[in-house]
Amino acid sequence: MRIEILNTGTELLLGNTVNTHAAWFGRELFKLGLRISRQTTVPDGDAIRDAMSESVARADALIVTGGLGPTSDDLTREITAEVLGIDLITDEAALRSLENFFALRGRPMAQANLKQALVPVGCDVLPNPNGTAPGVYVPPRLNGRSNCAVFLLPGPPRELYPMAHAEVFPRLRALSGVENPPSVLELKFTGIGESDFHQGIDAELAAIPGLEYGYCAHIGEVDLRLIGPPAALEEGRRIALGRFSSFLISDDGSSLEATVVRLLTERTMTLATAESCTGGLISHRLTNVPGASAVFTHGFATYANAAKISLLGVSPGDLEIHGAVSEVVARQMAAGALAASGADVAVSVTGIAGPDGGSDEKPVGTAWIGLAAKGAETTAFKVFHPRNRHDFKLAVSQAALEAVRRHVLGL
Amino acid sequence: MRIEILNTGTELLLGNTVNTHAAWFGRELFKLGLRISRQTTVPDGDAIRDAMSESVARADALIVTGGLGPTSDDLTREITAEVLGIDLITDEAALRSLENFFALRGRPMAQANLKQALVPVGCDVLPNPNGTAPGVYVPPRLNGRSNCAVFLLPGPPRELYPMAHAEVFPRLRALSGVENPPSVLELKFTGIGESDFHQGIDAELAAIPGLEYGYCAHIGEVDLRLIGPPAALEEGRRIALGRFSSFLISDDGSSLEATVVRLLTERTMTLATAESCTGGLISHRLTNVPGASAVFTHGFATYANAAKISLLGVSPGDLEIHGAVSEVVARQMAAGALAASGADVAVSVTGIAGPDGGSDEKPVGTAWIGLAAKGAETTAFKVFHPRNRHDFKLAVSQAALEAVRRHVLGL
Repeated sequence: MRIEILNTGTELLLGNTVNTHAAWFGRELFKLGLRISRQTTVPDGDAIRDAMSESVARADALIVTGGLGPTSDDLTREITAEVLGIDLITDEAALRSLENFFALRGRPMAQANLKQALVPVGCDVLPNPNGTAPGVYVPPRLNGRSNCAVFLLPGPPRELYPMAHAEVFPRLRALSGVENPPSVLELKFTGIGESDFHQGIDAELAAIPGLEYGYCAHIGEVDLRLIGPPAALEEGRRIALGRFSSFLISDDGSSLEATVVRLLTERTMTLATAESCTGGLISHRLTNVPGASAVFTHGFATYANAAKISLLGVSPGDLEIHGAVSEVVARQMAAGALAASGADVAVSVTGIAGPDGGSDEKPVGTAWIGLAAKGAETTAFKVFHPRNRHDFKLAVSQAALEAVRRHVLGL
Repeated sequence: MRIEILNTGTELLLGNTVNTHAAWFGRELFKLGLRISRQTTVPDGDAIRDAMSESVARADALIVTGGLGPTSDDLTREITAEVLGIDLITDEAALRSLENFFALRGRPMAQANLKQALVPVGCDVLPNPNGTAPGVYVPPRLNGRSNCAVFLLPGPPRELYPMAHAEVFPRLRALSGVENPPSVLELKFTGIGESDFHQGIDAELAAIPGLEYGYCAHIGEVDLRLIGPPAALEEGRRIALGRFSSFLISDDGSSLEATVVRLLTERTMTLATAESCTGGLISHRLTNVPGASAVFTHGFATYANAAKISLLGVSPGDLEIHGAVSEVVARQMAAGALAASGADVAVSVTGIAGPDGGSDEKPVGTAWIGLAAKGAETTAFKVFHPRNRHDFKLAVSQAALEAVRRHVLGL
């Protein structure tokens, strides 16, 4: 089944907004055993006409986002009717839903909103519980011009995503006739690189009948994606874990921080962080996980040496002799965070994010990570990520969270 | 001038990778007075042929990204030659550059890499100092088939962006004949919404001859973009600031955190943070700004009540009586962070991110923000952002940074 996405919006092509819809639809459709064959972005207005005409001639289904608002730029409804040769009428249910939306909020409905109730004759109106613009589904062969199923959806994600799940995916699934989408297994790893997989298990995976597989490398993480019949997935998992089990973050899509929070929760352990160069990114990531409050108690962002001394008890003499980015300071930060928090585990990072502050001995990208735990010796190790500031912080935070994961699992 | 972008890569349509190239090109081209008229994404391989044939028939310039690597999926060179009807030859300089790349890294060059030196006859080879794949520029009218200028560029941003700046934009500028790109002014505001602009200044902006303008709303921020001749921009700025000057973050694209770091640096003031519900996001944002170490000294992520008590001196009795999400605790957190850090200003946040923990009196989305400063009374105010966890943290961090900005400016 050939599915295309047409994203409309001048702001997408001016670069004010990054288009995340396409990737979202890609991931969601993939779970149904479907793939996007082409994605197109055009500005608001007349440019939609050409792109839509081409797509409906080529595709089995077209998903259009944006241009359903009340302003003069919002022309998706009108152009769809024109391209498919179907008249527009006011849908009474859509009109009542619009009136309700404004009544509930105690706001008057503007005259301009009336056009949001216009829909092509014979189509399905898709309810929008999260905004004013209802969606539209034009079934294939509703008219003589096209065999393409067309979905018109609102642009804002908080309106689009629920509507896609409730109204679009069930229809696409029925249209596609795919009864059993291929099973997918995603294994996330950290601490090893894509080349380790290539050298270590690629040939073995390639030999599994019916298995499609691929790697996706992120900063501090490699995802192995396996697609195929269940027996092939099991065989792929066996091979990957036979070689790399100690590097596995998750087999259910969970992030490293979610895995760390889960592992600590299961063991009723608590964690403290002491961050210099990452400046709070580790605690930010941990607290993105619902339920983090049960395990994450104290976070110290000790950017200044004075903060390392007063909050974590780092020795001024050692800061002087070894510098803030050193094994001894990383250890003292971790031990100090453990003592000040009473947590079961504490992790520390201190490094040089740049662009300034590097030296021959400690170039930009150098960081030390310390780990302290009740009843265990405090340790530290060095990492080197000569990247831009953003990627450096992310890579170092990944290494620190991974150190906690390995400690908790006794690896 | 009609410019199209063709992004190639199966991973973009499977959703493993969000396509940020299109937005980046949009922003960069806009600075040159140019706009993208269409952007298309297709999978690796043969699908590139159709999309490219359509684009070169329609556009004055086509920028293609991806598919220049050494593997069998990397077909952009071959397909371009086929579509434009030009033979491929091995470019000697490109071959030497490839050999150099591997020699410098002490790695053997694989046979597969040889095809990366293949280029259409008569085109320009675009050097790639950051990777193995050289870019290609096929001038318009190199052949009888197309008047479209075609650029083939590598996919990875660290290779693509420098090459675009060095090789693509100068050529596009020359081709476009745009001597003086329109001036652009972007004013970033916080603390007010898009509707305030609509009601407050929209009519006045619309009356300025030659001015094009638009709003772009983000979480906790509205950007006003003015495009036009310098006199029109000045008039637009005068009107916007006449009404909303106290809400201005920047007129040079700077983020709120960069503005806060700059303002503090200019006044040699220091800042401490005490974060509960944002969990380190404020300190993370501050430390994303190069030079933050001069002003940001202490960050406390006091997620647990015990941490609020021991690190910030919050009263256990008040926590019991008023709860952690309360005006009195927000004030005590800010005052405690100020005292513990010796900073000039301290900001605190305490709130309910959800999904659990809300009540009728304090629903999910409620947060208190406290501000303490040397020689000033400690204050606190409430905000309400009933959003998902990620957006809630972002909105609250924005309000807290804005509180610091207003304090520093005496607003």
